[in-house]
Amino acid sequence: MYRLFYWPEIQGRGEFIRLALEYAGADYVDVLRTRNGKFIATKKFTPFAPPYLVAGKEVIAQTANILQYLGPRLRLAPRREAGRRWANQLQLTIADWLAEVHDTHHPIGPGLYYEQQRREARRRAADFLATRLPKYLDYFEGVLRRSGGPWLLGKTLAYPDLSLFQMVAGLRFAFPKTMTRLEKHYPRTGLLHKRVAAQPRLARYLGSQRRISFNQQGIFRHYPELDRIGNNSEKT
Amino acid sequence: MYRLFYWPEIQGRGEFIRLALEYAGADYVDVLRTRNGKFIATKKFTPFAPPYLVAGKEVIAQTANILQYLGPRLRLAPRREAGRRWANQLQLTIADWLAEVHDTHHPIGPGLYYEQQRREARRRAADFLATRLPKYLDYFEGVLRRSGGPWLLGKTLAYPDLSLFQMVAGLRFAFPKTMTRLEKHYPRTGLLHKRVAAQPRLARYLGSQRRISFNQQGIFRHYPELDRIGNNSEKT
Repeated sequence: MYRLFYWPEIQGRGEFIRLALEYAGADYVDVLRTRNGKFIATKKFTPFAPPYLVAGKEVIAQTANILQYLGPRLRLAPRREAGRRWANQLQLTIADWLAEVHDTHHPIGPGLYYEQQRREARRRAADFLATRLPKYLDYFEGVLRRSGGPWLLGKTLAYPDLSLFQMVAGLRFAFPKTMTRLEKHYPRTGLLHKRVAAQPRLARYLGSQRRISFNQQGIFRHYPELDRIGNNSEKT
Repeated sequence: MYRLFYWPEIQGRGEFIRLALEYAGADYVDVLRTRNGKFIATKKFTPFAPPYLVAGKEVIAQTANILQYLGPRLRLAPRREAGRRWANQLQLTIADWLAEVHDTHHPIGPGLYYEQQRREARRRAADFLATRLPKYLDYFEGVLRRSGGPWLLGKTLAYPDLSLFQMVAGLRFAFPKTMTRLEKHYPRTGLLHKRVAAQPRLARYLGSQRRISFNQQGIFRHYPELDRIGNNSEKT
């Protein structure tokens, strides 16, 4: 049995782990969401930050590292080492992308409120939507084109597919106007999102109480004033 | 023979790979630094961005992914899987830290010049130096304390040690005043830096022309106006 430790009020980074566990029907406890569940102190393998997974005596942190551990165990990774490295490479690129999404509403620092960095957030979000978001979408659309589809690695679903699904879901919540405009250029990515959501176990999970709703405490947040390309009018 | 592809004018993320290759005395070519060397187009395992390493038919991108591949091959990783995951976890935490360093001078976007985001950079750097930098230094000092030293994983040097060395070196270049003030609280980290620099092959590398100097195009940049704790005076 796996024990996942992550903030109980948000999807956040933990959701990338939850999706893999739920897709596979794994035996796990989302510890902080149980009565009296709390983070545990660890002496060995001490994490810098949640999420972390406890598996036997091992404490595994960093989202991509956890997924790399779970991948083969949940039949969500290729069998060969080169394929696993490619899955990890894609996952780490998603991690970079996610950090940039976070910084659209927290460009100055995670310890300050959004309201304390709203002006900077407008500039950062504008740059993200105009340059970075298309760059990442182009990249993953290209990977899907070259793989032959329907999944990033080809014919078999792997854990980065679940994470790309989550990116699309989160971006649609955070930037609905921009995504509506951009998504027509990324049909394979949109189709991947749809196919992941239709996987039977995941469909049940996504429709259940276990799936925390997107909200204004998570990584993906919807601030209408940030969902505009071209509001980077403030020149220096 | 390994072929490394990375920007030839900067240390950047590529330096974390160079340090591992140099420490181990590996047979490699830093392709862009050779005459007429350039990035190659790749069809399989296409990277989102440099650095990437070509090893046989495989193209491996993402710094932590490359180091995870090289680790066992260069005797820079533990033998057991749990230890390798711990090394990877530390490396990914360093990657997060490095991204935050980058954003001190580019808080709005990588496509804009520093001069276009100088005001925001002052706020971001102030927050980084006051809250984030001590948090990361505390963390790694704690890892060194718990490991028993002298290295992050205990008695044997592994690739995250080389990367922590690089973080200290870069931070001293970028934020000399702040580091002078902070470092006395992190004796183990300072000692690790010193010990890495004294490894014979690395000492030769660091004193050679192969080691690119820190400069104002890299990730670690020295802008004196950013090297001040407490200049986050601009309230919103």
